[in-house]
Amino acid sequence: MRNVSQKLSIARGERPAELLFKNAKLVNVLSGEIHPANVAVDDGRVVGIGDYRARKVIDLRGAYLAPSLIDGHFHVESSMLTAPEFARAVAPHGTGAVVIDPHEYANVLGLDGIRYVLESSKNLPVDFFIMLPSCVPATSLETAGARITADDLRLMIGDERVAGVAELMNFPGVYLGVKSELAKIAAGKGKCIDGHAPGLRGKNLNAYVLAGVRSDHESVTLPEAREKLRLGLHLLLREGSTERNLAHLIPLVNAHNAVNCSFATDDKLAGDLVHEGHIDHCVRKSIKLGLSPITALQIATINVARHYCLHNLGAIAPRYWADFIVFDNLRNFRVRQTYKKGVLVAEAGEYRARSTPRVPLPRSTMNLRYQPHDLFVAAKGARKIRVIKIVPDQIVTKEIIATPKIANGEIVADVGRDILKLVVVERHRATGNVGVGFVRGFKLQRGAIGSTVAHDAHNIVVAGTNDADILRVIEELERLQGGQVAVVNGKVTAELALPIAGLVSDRPLPEVIKRMDALNAAARQTGCDLAAPFMTLSFLSLSPIPELKLTDQGLIDAVNLKKTTLFV
Amino acid sequence: MRNVSQKLSIARGERPAELLFKNAKLVNVLSGEIHPANVAVDDGRVVGIGDYRARKVIDLRGAYLAPSLIDGHFHVESSMLTAPEFARAVAPHGTGAVVIDPHEYANVLGLDGIRYVLESSKNLPVDFFIMLPSCVPATSLETAGARITADDLRLMIGDERVAGVAELMNFPGVYLGVKSELAKIAAGKGKCIDGHAPGLRGKNLNAYVLAGVRSDHESVTLPEAREKLRLGLHLLLREGSTERNLAHLIPLVNAHNAVNCSFATDDKLAGDLVHEGHIDHCVRKSIKLGLSPITALQIATINVARHYCLHNLGAIAPRYWADFIVFDNLRNFRVRQTYKKGVLVAEAGEYRARSTPRVPLPRSTMNLRYQPHDLFVAAKGARKIRVIKIVPDQIVTKEIIATPKIANGEIVADVGRDILKLVVVERHRATGNVGVGFVRGFKLQRGAIGSTVAHDAHNIVVAGTNDADILRVIEELERLQGGQVAVVNGKVTAELALPIAGLVSDRPLPEVIKRMDALNAAARQTGCDLAAPFMTLSFLSLSPIPELKLTDQGLIDAVNLKKTTLFV
Repeated sequence: MRNVSQKLSIARGERPAELLFKNAKLVNVLSGEIHPANVAVDDGRVVGIGDYRARKVIDLRGAYLAPSLIDGHFHVESSMLTAPEFARAVAPHGTGAVVIDPHEYANVLGLDGIRYVLESSKNLPVDFFIMLPSCVPATSLETAGARITADDLRLMIGDERVAGVAELMNFPGVYLGVKSELAKIAAGKGKCIDGHAPGLRGKNLNAYVLAGVRSDHESVTLPEAREKLRLGLHLLLREGSTERNLAHLIPLVNAHNAVNCSFATDDKLAGDLVHEGHIDHCVRKSIKLGLSPITALQIATINVARHYCLHNLGAIAPRYWADFIVFDNLRNFRVRQTYKKGVLVAEAGEYRARSTPRVPLPRSTMNLRYQPHDLFVAAKGARKIRVIKIVPDQIVTKEIIATPKIANGEIVADVGRDILKLVVVERHRATGNVGVGFVRGFKLQRGAIGSTVAHDAHNIVVAGTNDADILRVIEELERLQGGQVAVVNGKVTAELALPIAGLVSDRPLPEVIKRMDALNAAARQTGCDLAAPFMTLSFLSLSPIPELKLTDQGLIDAVNLKKTTLFV
Repeated sequence: MRNVSQKLSIARGERPAELLFKNAKLVNVLSGEIHPANVAVDDGRVVGIGDYRARKVIDLRGAYLAPSLIDGHFHVESSMLTAPEFARAVAPHGTGAVVIDPHEYANVLGLDGIRYVLESSKNLPVDFFIMLPSCVPATSLETAGARITADDLRLMIGDERVAGVAELMNFPGVYLGVKSELAKIAAGKGKCIDGHAPGLRGKNLNAYVLAGVRSDHESVTLPEAREKLRLGLHLLLREGSTERNLAHLIPLVNAHNAVNCSFATDDKLAGDLVHEGHIDHCVRKSIKLGLSPITALQIATINVARHYCLHNLGAIAPRYWADFIVFDNLRNFRVRQTYKKGVLVAEAGEYRARSTPRVPLPRSTMNLRYQPHDLFVAAKGARKIRVIKIVPDQIVTKEIIATPKIANGEIVADVGRDILKLVVVERHRATGNVGVGFVRGFKLQRGAIGSTVAHDAHNIVVAGTNDADILRVIEELERLQGGQVAVVNGKVTAELALPIAGLVSDRPLPEVIKRMDALNAAARQTGCDLAAPFMTLSFLSLSPIPELKLTDQGLIDAVNLKKTTLFV
């Protein structure tokens, strides 16, 4: 703490504070009550609660004053925004800190990606705390840009903004006691160890917890969440763009166990952050679902800070940072003002913070080697093929068997039966790997759409009605140094450049949202009726999630985690 | 964690556990509920909750199974027991861990005293965690055996059983920003910082918290406790031998704020621990005062462990130590069995643990230099004198002015008016310091009583009706190398040797209790009607507590913290 003597004399009331927030209804997440208070702030910190003098008085006229909100688990890349532009999106919603897992950056750029996030997120109106990605690459069935080992984790675990080791997605590896996975847990000693165990129950869940995992954000049903809570996992109650679990989980939560709960968004698109909100949406929704407001606000603030040891965040009391939100209604919770270290950074939905100097972008990550011929699929007679079937709004897929459409000895897309060609081109190491398959569910009538966001290895993934447009998409993605693109008849109809790791835009928030909207509109105009076609596309490579996926190494039987063949 | 692979395979159900606690009503302090469960234990830890096989099954037949209880703040010297004998006293009451402040050891022996406690408390059925004494000596108005600086704290703060810096009793020093006090807080960086701020309110309390203090155990009224809780202090709800605050504080506590509360006993005599209980008494009393049982048990277990970062203690879940208590009734809470790391250590009030090998006693601490003449108080005419007036059951005293009884030009004790001579002899450094004064309240009709327990410097303190018996007490205390003694007409009528720092007995628990009872009886037989005459005696030197005290340096005006004179 800087200038301790001066701050103590202000606290003792001997000299005026910088700021006084007067006539507040203080949401005191420490005493679990709401009480009238005046809060004195100096040099960015709360110095006292009481009848203080100050050089500047902010009269809240009975409005609520609460600590700023904290997201317990988020992948900032899912917003496709840089850290400063993400702050622009969420500060108006009252977010003061996020615990992020830069899993996508790490898959593309390795430790350089984590360092980039640490650097680019300094001194923002939103504090970033980093969980070190623990599962890079996710599997050996796709080619990622990097590999992170326990040794790598040890290199960075000591950083004061590193809060621990991120979600241990290889949960069988953990409960089976695979040495490399246990070594990653050991590397996080003394800090938090996040879990990721969708559907894991019973004895294997006990083993997963025993190994040292301390949280989970994958519960989708109440019985699953209850079992995890009973075994000692901190529950990250997730409500993101697609995974929306609050309605199922909030009935489990009460004042007796809320200390072991935090809110998390996991993945949320820029537009959803702006229009629907961030953790404020979780608070609002939880209150509507019947949770007591003080409990909801504790979950959104001090409980996250306590679990992740975020010092001096999450409450309003002496020594805590003056990270405040102001709002007027407890039952219809809408943040009116957001303060960071005593400075107004957002008001009435408007971002008020000064822009921060940019840090250098990380190196180019588009390193392709492919030929048009790589897209060719020889017909090989009249055999049937495996087709990936999209399940709308989910990241799981189904495998269906179909008779291929053949033209000139080649299997081609069949728009009439909604069977498009799906292509994955490795983009990190110029291996020349190209995976080709077929997909049902996009309903594109013409053109192609593609993305360099493609979980978890983030190679190029393109779905298209014809090879020419697919190739045009790939060319354009290479020219943009990563991005998302829609093409019809050789012409780009919409695009969003994502030059930062092929994952994140370097453009301001409004432009990102506008271009994403345009991309969705372009897909829709060619016949697609999915809610988020590019997000759906980005999960078609995710090999750990059933049933059938396509990576740069070809079709993947994602149930048995092994390669499979196009032809049945 | 030892043998991880083996434990994980047990958790997965592939091989039997060592132990299974079957048919429990599990007090799940993590999920905040009580639910039926079977708990598997191996190698001292919980490995799983569920339907496990085990080599030995303990059928609880529907009894409650809860984590062992934890005391958040205790001076083990107040029991006058060694750590192993203290464990013998409290394990039957369900205590599994204590956070202790070896403040008295440190005042006598300095860092050697702290090291002795660390050594002598290893591998017991009760885990000891140490807060490093921060205020040794308490003041410069008495001569202690040692001085502890911030540098000393830094030497020991890294020990894994050191949980932080103990109560910062010099609270004005802290809120005024005195460098030596802030340096002690800084020395505890990353660990807990305990407070001690009786009656501190308002702006100075804000400054005290701002400086970095994180707990307090001195609240005696609800408004004081509420203010401290609101400002972010962890409340140690105290119920010891003399200071009994639960009745006043429990109405403040509820499920929304209990996470910021722990139970503490601070000071409790061996007999009280055995007969009334320890933290079990706090739980029992809190439930009777209206607190919900699950909240009371959370306060007694996980909340302490969380605040003091006592890893793997305070809950029953995989990876936690198998520190359990078994009981049958939630409303009349009585511990029937206590387990430490899966081993039964107490049952039905009987201690079942094996005795542990003794560690060497610390060096002698009785280093006296005095002469009979030191007790002589010249009459100096007919002037009035200041007399310390005891307030029964409190550590504060009053100052009264009295006309002295004079015999042969000397002021002597006046049994008729209950004015006894009080003598303090420095015993650490053979300074020759002897303080002499007079005290009202003991009502001794003959003889003298004395003690080498005398807060905080622990010099010899004797109250007596005549110099010969006072000298006899001092001689006997020297012979015993510390202790408590009652003498009548030159004969020792009762005594308890305290050869460990002059504070703690090397005898077994039953003998200590028997001898303490005998001492009290001896005092009572000579006319004393105080509940705890030796405890009252031991606080008559405590110079920071008002109004009038006597140290080896003479009479102390404990309101203004300066020396004063016998004659008005």
